[in-house]
Amino acid sequence: RRLLPISLGLFQGALLLFFALFVTYDQSSAQAEDASLVAIQLYGIFPLFQDIQVMLVVGLGLLLTFLPRYGLSALTHNFLLLNFSTQWALVLQGLLHYFHHGRAHLDLHNLLTAEFAAVTVLISVGAILGRTSPCQLLVVAACEVPVYLASEWAIVTHLGVLDVGGTITIHVFSCYFGLGVSKALFGAAQQPAHPKETPTHRSDLMSLVGTLILWVFWPSFVAVLCQPGDAQHRAILNTFLAMSASAVTTVVASSLLESDSKLSPGHLQNGSLAGGVAIGVVADMAMPPVAALALGSLSAVACVLGFKFLTPLLVRKIALRDQCGIHNLHGLPGILGAVASAAVVLVASQGSSDSHFSQVSSTGETAREEARGEWGDHGAGRQALRQVVGLAVATGGSLLTGLLTGAALRLPCLARPPERLCFDDSMHFKMQDRAESPGPGDTAEEGALALKERV
Amino acid sequence: RRLLPISLGLFQGALLLFFALFVTYDQSSAQAEDASLVAIQLYGIFPLFQDIQVMLVVGLGLLLTFLPRYGLSALTHNFLLLNFSTQWALVLQGLLHYFHHGRAHLDLHNLLTAEFAAVTVLISVGAILGRTSPCQLLVVAACEVPVYLASEWAIVTHLGVLDVGGTITIHVFSCYFGLGVSKALFGAAQQPAHPKETPTHRSDLMSLVGTLILWVFWPSFVAVLCQPGDAQHRAILNTFLAMSASAVTTVVASSLLESDSKLSPGHLQNGSLAGGVAIGVVADMAMPPVAALALGSLSAVACVLGFKFLTPLLVRKIALRDQCGIHNLHGLPGILGAVASAAVVLVASQGSSDSHFSQVSSTGETAREEARGEWGDHGAGRQALRQVVGLAVATGGSLLTGLLTGAALRLPCLARPPERLCFDDSMHFKMQDRAESPGPGDTAEEGALALKERV
Amino acid sequence: RRLLPISLGLFQGALLLFFALFVTYDQSSAQAEDASLVAIQLYGIFPLFQDIQVMLVVGLGLLLTFLPRYGLSALTHNFLLLNFSTQWALVLQGLLHYFHHGRAHLDLHNLLTAEFAAVTVLISVGAILGRTSPCQLLVVAACEVPVYLASEWAIVTHLGVLDVGGTITIHVFSCYFGLGVSKALFGAAQQPAHPKETPTHRSDLMSLVGTLILWVFWPSFVAVLCQPGDAQHRAILNTFLAMSASAVTTVVASSLLESDSKLSPGHLQNGSLAGGVAIGVVADMAMPPVAALALGSLSAVACVLGFKFLTPLLVRKIALRDQCGIHNLHGLPGILGAVASAAVVLVASQGSSDSHFSQVSSTGETAREEARGEWGDHGAGRQALRQVVGLAVATGGSLLTGLLTGAALRLPCLARPPERLCFDDSMHFKMQDRAESPGPGDTAEEGALALKERV
Repeated sequence: RRLLPISLGLFQGALLLFFALFVTYDQSSAQAEDASLVAIQLYGIFPLFQDIQVMLVVGLGLLLTFLPRYGLSALTHNFLLLNFSTQWALVLQGLLHYFHHGRAHLDLHNLLTAEFAAVTVLISVGAILGRTSPCQLLVVAACEVPVYLASEWAIVTHLGVLDVGGTITIHVFSCYFGLGVSKALFGAAQQPAHPKETPTHRSDLMSLVGTLILWVFWPSFVAVLCQPGDAQHRAILNTFLAMSASAVTTVVASSLLESDSKLSPGHLQNGSLAGGVAIGVVADMAMPPVAALALGSLSAVACVLGFKFLTPLLVRKIALRDQCGIHNLHGLPGILGAVASAAVVLVASQGSSDSHFSQVSSTGETAREEARGEWGDHGAGRQALRQVVGLAVATGGSLLTGLLTGAALRLPCLARPPERLCFDDSMHFKMQDRAESPGPGDTAEEGALALKERV
Repeated sequence: RRLLPISLGLFQGALLLFFALFVTYDQSSAQAEDASLVAIQLYGIFPLFQDIQVMLVVGLGLLLTFLPRYGLSALTHNFLLLNFSTQWALVLQGLLHYFHHGRAHLDLHNLLTAEFAAVTVLISVGAILGRTSPCQLLVVAACEVPVYLASEWAIVTHLGVLDVGGTITIHVFSCYFGLGVSKALFGAAQQPAHPKETPTHRSDLMSLVGTLILWVFWPSFVAVLCQPGDAQHRAILNTFLAMSASAVTTVVASSLLESDSKLSPGHLQNGSLAGGVAIGVVADMAMPPVAALALGSLSAVACVLGFKFLTPLLVRKIALRDQCGIHNLHGLPGILGAVASAAVVLVASQGSSDSHFSQVSSTGETAREEARGEWGDHGAGRQALRQVVGLAVATGGSLLTGLLTGAALRLPCLARPPERLCFDDSMHFKMQDRAESPGPGDTAEEGALALKERV
Repeated sequence: RRLLPISLGLFQGALLLFFALFVTYDQSSAQAEDASLVAIQLYGIFPLFQDIQVMLVVGLGLLLTFLPRYGLSALTHNFLLLNFSTQWALVLQGLLHYFHHGRAHLDLHNLLTAEFAAVTVLISVGAILGRTSPCQLLVVAACEVPVYLASEWAIVTHLGVLDVGGTITIHVFSCYFGLGVSKALFGAAQQPAHPKETPTHRSDLMSLVGTLILWVFWPSFVAVLCQPGDAQHRAILNTFLAMSASAVTTVVASSLLESDSKLSPGHLQNGSLAGGVAIGVVADMAMPPVAALALGSLSAVACVLGFKFLTPLLVRKIALRDQCGIHNLHGLPGILGAVASAAVVLVASQGSSDSHFSQVSSTGETAREEARGEWGDHGAGRQALRQVVGLAVATGGSLLTGLLTGAALRLPCLARPPERLCFDDSMHFKMQDRAESPGPGDTAEEGALALKERV
């Protein structure tokens, strides 16, 4: 059917029209004397932007190739959704801006916030990877981006939640949105494991390379929107510490849980990143380095325990499918991070009279300073409450809208692929080498087994 | 035969001699007070330089591994040619500079322009990938680099063509040079498809990873030589928009053209990058964002149509072999970009009286501003003409010199590998694991088939 | 057994305790007016830091995947050791600093020097890759990091050796440490080659990708701790030239040595990087570009000759196992670089009266300037002597402590894996797909051979 190309083509056409009518480039430096300042600002943000692009396009794409025959589809859908969602977010942001200010500008900062909107889509579809058609994925993207923008506005702008690395607004939000979609789409039917769902040695290796790329560049993701200077420096260091602790703790936790002290590749691929998810919300706050290490370790433990116990439990009890384990990587560590942020706010305000924190807090991040200044005693309590309320809003709102989106995916015009074609690239790609091969796959086992049947 | 190591060793020796005699480091900051300025300039260019290195060494290398048994050779030849050509371009640039100024300096900027010369070689050899010996590739590099330097001088310095991202000088030039080489080398004989030419699932995956790496870092390639400040910022944004539109449009076009709406991996690997090729020539010009999106979409359509219709047609009609489809990725989008640049120049000059463009043009890129200022009415027309003439010079000159180079490759001393050894790493590499394996390959199909024969 | 997770868990706990007690963030800009300066410093160092992270986590990890069934373990052990050793180095550095200054700060610079300590571990374990348990690797890390810190202090701070890129302090040190460990651990027994030791086509390809990633980012590794400005610029260019010459020369040398002029993948994977090892110690010195090219070429020749003749000789004569050939990649080029640094110091001092070098030396790197100023005639000789003494200290000290560490690895509680389980991921990982597969591997040969036995 031609639904995918036609709808996607229409979208691209509409986008062109919108850009033609509304969007111009930002004139940040109409004055020539600012040119070098503009250049230095660009030098500060552009390398981080590129790092984030590598994470989303290459790192996340490779992480999803753990399904051995679904690698091309995983990479391609991730890539397509990133571009579609970013453009869609640019349109929505631009429209909002246009109606407020009569003009929609485009600069690297806008682009980054639009990409963050796209990240939520990339995370959410992890729950339904492999059993959905590209059209269904595009519908998810079309629904999730505006909901994210509304949710982000409500949580950050309206409630005043502090969340520089997107722990609450991106990770927790997209996790529960994705789980809602999965629940509503797949219903309550229990199904046996699909034979093509099991990673092979090679696909686990590719996926681990994706994890490592994400791990390396995660500090850029968390720090890119921080205040330049000390806050950004601290965010980078905190993120590094949390992720480093995550990596070590994941090995410990996975070894302790598995028989024979062997590691599970899946734990490693996800647990190593859990610290990065959790640290986002506190990365630039005034807290000692040990807090970052502890949060990273805790997140990794939560993630590994989630894979070992919670995911099977959710499958048994409520038939919830979560193909990539997004609840373990984004949900649990995100909740931990949000709770930690409330704690840090409370402790930091109490500590601001003693020498340790007063030094830390005099670091020039003026906006927050003022906020903290006026917190006083119950101001800090109020901010801590905000963090928790923000978490609740993100969780509840995303679960609800995710369920609605999942219900929309059951519309007859968006037929799901039949079970036997799931997790297979040949559903989406023209494979040249499959015609006379001794089976649909390219691993040795299959080749040998297929031959065996013939022999 | 020992031709390759001996000639390459002699080249390296000659290069050492040349460097010993002529080249010193640039003393950009003999004054100590400029030290921090030098440092900031370095911070601005070095990350982009590294991005470009990743593109050329890793991204382009992986893109070429779509030939399933030629991966080591593709990566290695790409790597060797990059280094050989860069050094060769440094020598030629240095000699020119030495005879003009009595001294040849070396700095990161020189290195970048030398690498751009090397890029043309890497693109051109895509047309003859897999059927040539390393010696032949080195001859191509030895011939193409000086021709490129002359052509770049003629087009940019002499004609005054604007081409910040190398669309005309690099992409169009190298495409037609490569096609010329291919035509003269392989002659008019039609040959059936080689059995090892067909990508496998795994090699398509590796190649797609290469595409994604190129896609991510392309803005650095286009923007690295822009004026710092707004022009560079705009070039980055335009490139991103064009490539994003390319990615989405490629999926649309490929789905519409293939049966069952399935995607072709080859279309995706190339079409996603077409926008980056086309945008180079207009990336820093004063044009609205929608133009970048439209150009990206058009290029992707041209690229996919080229793969689907033009390449088979050229094979049938003139027996032109283009192994990697460089005509579709570099030729067609490059021509589109050049034509678009002429249009942008014309429109921008007409629009400079109305508010939209006058704002855009007051962005401090003084050199161009003056040029545009003095264009007046027929000045813009002259510049548009220059863009078109530059395109013609690049196309014609490269095709001619490419044909001559291809003819040189037929010299008896540069014997081509026999057809049955083509597209196979064992031609160039000592493979340790081939001695007792059940066949030359390592894919399941082969293993199984080889065994079948024995059984 | 539970030794690994328990000991690692205890380490992580102790680390948390240490950080809680001692470490705070550095208050580099308590004054708000310095904020933009801090930001610019961060922009200068952070992209290079990220480059180094990519090298260590992704590049080096992939380089080690040349063992076809040990890819997951190689990547994971590399990743785990990097994190463990960095944290361990942070603790040791912090303790030292705490006892001197009453406070341990953490900033990106500290983190970098801690990572450099971790690099020595990653290099050393290359000698014993595949035949050791993770516990043994952690013991190596635990022993090597303090020895490195002491050695680095002795060589750089106490002796005054110049070694900006770590050629002596990192590469030579870790090479002989690793060889010492290997010798003491494996003893004098000659053993036949393990069947799983031989790279396959695919594992060679992955490993080559790792080499290319290392190759691309090596200039960042060498230049990150240079003086900003010209010295850093020169270090980047010198490193590029050395590595480019290495790449070309490796192809020449490998072709000349192998039968049929074919390349050996192993030579290419290592020789291309030899120039980067050697150039580190002279990268920022006042020397003409030709010296960098020559040093790169020589290192590549030494590396390839080492693989071809020295490694087999050492195996025959003293049963020295060096799984990754670290002696060829880090030892020989490191020695070459150290000797070259002595020569450059001597030549530079003699040349400082003539115009060529006096210009080069007036580039604002004040610390060295003064050193060079007071060298006079025999001052340069003394510095050259220091370089050689530093090399001797690094070699001797590391060999001795490496032997002791290797002896400790023979403790009964650290049982080595049995020979038949070596070089196999199934020793360390829970492989889901192995239950019913026709053998432990996933390559075609095995699949087919296993089937053959059954048929």
